[in-house]
Amino acid sequence: MALADLQPVARNDAGSAAVVGILKQRFGERFQTGQAIRGQHAHSTTYIPSQLPDGVVFPHSTEEVQEIVRVCGEHGVPVIPFGTGTSLEGHVNAPGGGICIDMMQMNKVLAVHAEDLDCTIEPGVTREELNTYLRDTGLFFPIDPGANASLGGMASTRASGTNAVRYGTMRENVLSLTAVMADGRAITTAKRARKSSAGYDLTRLLVGSEGTLGVITGLTLKLYGIPQAISGGVCPFPSVDAACNAVITTIQMGVPVARIELVNALCMRALNGYAKLDYPETPCLFLEFHGTDAGVREQAETFGEIAAEFGGGSFQWTNVAEERAKLWKARHDAYWAGLSLKPGATSLSTDVCVPISRLAECINETEEDIARSGLIAPIVGHVGDGNFHVMVLMDRDDPKQIEATEAFVARLNMRAIAMDGTCTGEHGVGQGKIAFLPHELGAGVDFMRSIKQALDPDNIMNPGKVLPLRA
Amino acid sequence: MALADLQPVARNDAGSAAVVGILKQRFGERFQTGQAIRGQHAHSTTYIPSQLPDGVVFPHSTEEVQEIVRVCGEHGVPVIPFGTGTSLEGHVNAPGGGICIDMMQMNKVLAVHAEDLDCTIEPGVTREELNTYLRDTGLFFPIDPGANASLGGMASTRASGTNAVRYGTMRENVLSLTAVMADGRAITTAKRARKSSAGYDLTRLLVGSEGTLGVITGLTLKLYGIPQAISGGVCPFPSVDAACNAVITTIQMGVPVARIELVNALCMRALNGYAKLDYPETPCLFLEFHGTDAGVREQAETFGEIAAEFGGGSFQWTNVAEERAKLWKARHDAYWAGLSLKPGATSLSTDVCVPISRLAECINETEEDIARSGLIAPIVGHVGDGNFHVMVLMDRDDPKQIEATEAFVARLNMRAIAMDGTCTGEHGVGQGKIAFLPHELGAGVDFMRSIKQALDPDNIMNPGKVLPLRA
Repeated sequence: MALADLQPVARNDAGSAAVVGILKQRFGERFQTGQAIRGQHAHSTTYIPSQLPDGVVFPHSTEEVQEIVRVCGEHGVPVIPFGTGTSLEGHVNAPGGGICIDMMQMNKVLAVHAEDLDCTIEPGVTREELNTYLRDTGLFFPIDPGANASLGGMASTRASGTNAVRYGTMRENVLSLTAVMADGRAITTAKRARKSSAGYDLTRLLVGSEGTLGVITGLTLKLYGIPQAISGGVCPFPSVDAACNAVITTIQMGVPVARIELVNALCMRALNGYAKLDYPETPCLFLEFHGTDAGVREQAETFGEIAAEFGGGSFQWTNVAEERAKLWKARHDAYWAGLSLKPGATSLSTDVCVPISRLAECINETEEDIARSGLIAPIVGHVGDGNFHVMVLMDRDDPKQIEATEAFVARLNMRAIAMDGTCTGEHGVGQGKIAFLPHELGAGVDFMRSIKQALDPDNIMNPGKVLPLRA
Repeated sequence: MALADLQPVARNDAGSAAVVGILKQRFGERFQTGQAIRGQHAHSTTYIPSQLPDGVVFPHSTEEVQEIVRVCGEHGVPVIPFGTGTSLEGHVNAPGGGICIDMMQMNKVLAVHAEDLDCTIEPGVTREELNTYLRDTGLFFPIDPGANASLGGMASTRASGTNAVRYGTMRENVLSLTAVMADGRAITTAKRARKSSAGYDLTRLLVGSEGTLGVITGLTLKLYGIPQAISGGVCPFPSVDAACNAVITTIQMGVPVARIELVNALCMRALNGYAKLDYPETPCLFLEFHGTDAGVREQAETFGEIAAEFGGGSFQWTNVAEERAKLWKARHDAYWAGLSLKPGATSLSTDVCVPISRLAECINETEEDIARSGLIAPIVGHVGDGNFHVMVLMDRDDPKQIEATEAFVARLNMRAIAMDGTCTGEHGVGQGKIAFLPHELGAGVDFMRSIKQALDPDNIMNPGKVLPLRA
């Protein structure tokens, strides 16, 4: 992978000019072409350079999105859906220009079906907004990728996060969605039944398709009852191996742990420095248990025994909300704490996921690789799923550091793939992981391309993302 | 729906003759063309008439399946994958003739990764064979559609069954699969990582595609630790409404029930008569709880309180394996018990699934419809998911009964769809549900057709299934 390898998309200046004229007339103030706003909408939270769209439109309905897609389709102009812009792999860049569709004004909760444990929402609702809305119902939506992302964006990238080990990812939690397809037609992929064998799984096809097959304009999501009791704790381990073995045993014994997060020694040091904490600076697991009062006690005690068996501990757990909040604030501070290790640095946050039996090996080799490469790069992981993030801190004005980082990321991805894992557990492909997809999936990529071509023959839907150009 | 509406597929006699000649030479005894064996492979367990393939081949490897598909592709001859033949909607019929690929000699468990809670198998392994194989590992594969089906067939039809409420369906439990596509290439859809955001979800696209996009030749499945404790029980209710309300409350409170099955009053009467039992002849819930000793006790007690609140009970539960076995044998006897209500009758077993808030309404209206139609038709349901089956008993020599049954099934499907549900929760579309798919998914069906056309341009993969002809 190299920055220069970002997949080119041919510009269509005449088409874009025509579309800009039409949308300006149609949407007035809700269509913007200023440099600043276009820049905000191509902002990537990583080191991939921004590629600006030609205009940004703010629709209010599925019908308006249909109109926009039809206009762009008629003129062969790219369409890039946009949520909160928190993606890490260049998903919202516009390599061939085109129109950014900012979905954030479609932010209504349309229905909560408490008996069915589901809700229907517009895609611009963020996960925190949804949970605030749900507060009085006793229900919540568990998926938490860290950022307060829009749920449409989370579905588009098949997001997950800290409690996927218990509740699954967006793949398991989208019951149905509405999407505007490349030809401007809108489809709803499923009814609200909890399960269905009625034809091809269009819901799962669109979840994780990153706007390259359709623009998500509505979602029906699974909800869960807020657990009667929640407890949590932090447990230090003498090594990554010991921590990973404790995780494997915990999962194997069927302890329904809600979160089980690894923070490596360097990241613990960063957390202590950043937040004035005094955790041990060895690999630690941060845990959370959901259940009944008796259930969470039993889970925590079982985990404590497992941890002791692998040399971990002591495991202190609490069901006091304030203490838990402090604990998870520390975990969620990992990003900012990591940045503090190298003030002024740009961070590249990358993620891979491997079978849990290979996790310790993968993290150990990666830590050695980081040391050999002379990089500063803390690691945190959603280890119940075998998923971990490396946050490389680099000086983006130093070509040597960029080169070293890119070479490291390439080795990391290939290492994960060689261990029967994936080049992205939850960040998505975007622009940054395109080069690795064929290594992971071989001819499968050709069939993805056939599907893309069948559903978007003119390649207007978020072009230059997910799929490598034909070899 | 009417029998006469089964979708026609043009025969290609010259092509079939050529393929039969080639496969006979290549596979010898492993290719059969006798009437009896062809008849067994088109046997439908329902009332849809058999449509025989021109030959049946028994491959031993992915490479052999590739060879077969390539030969059929070159001659434009249909390919119909076959497992145990327990599908209920005509999936294994050969409306245009062609070659049945019997996968049952590909029945090896290739690897069990206990630490990763997964296994890799060939598609002809049945769920009971897999669980027998796993016995010493402390692990099991939970999905149980009733029949001892092949796991390839279960993946093809997105099967589920009694414990989907806790463990999900084949959709959630296939980590990865290998499939031979229409052009003869084999792909593996994912690595073994528990989650991935790497491109389009080809795994979920193939799960439930009923052999119309590819032939599944390998599967990596999620496994689970056998629970420390299992308890179960039966609880009578005064009405379907009361039972459904108890189910809703149980799910809403987050009781992680492993099975929660409704058996309606008629079906309870049949069970008592068939198996010499003395259960109350009112709607009953059959339950199973998985967890720790303390956990299953707590779950059962919580359910008992909920049941009492809705007029149910008394709820007797047991963790004695023999008593549980007896209880679930009764539940699993429902099919045979049902048949005993009308000796000599042919059964049509159909399934729908609705949001759980509409379940009581849907079952009540359906019971009234059955009574009005003069049919005999017991009902059992996987009610934690809103899924239920109606088993219509009819004399297939009586055109009036067939007509009444077909009209009833059509009303049932349209009723479920109108309640925001699906025309099939777990049996699949096959031939029997094709007519209802457009009512359920509208333009979504057009996009399914585009995908089919892109991946199987000559329509050789199990033609005449899932998708309605273009209007």
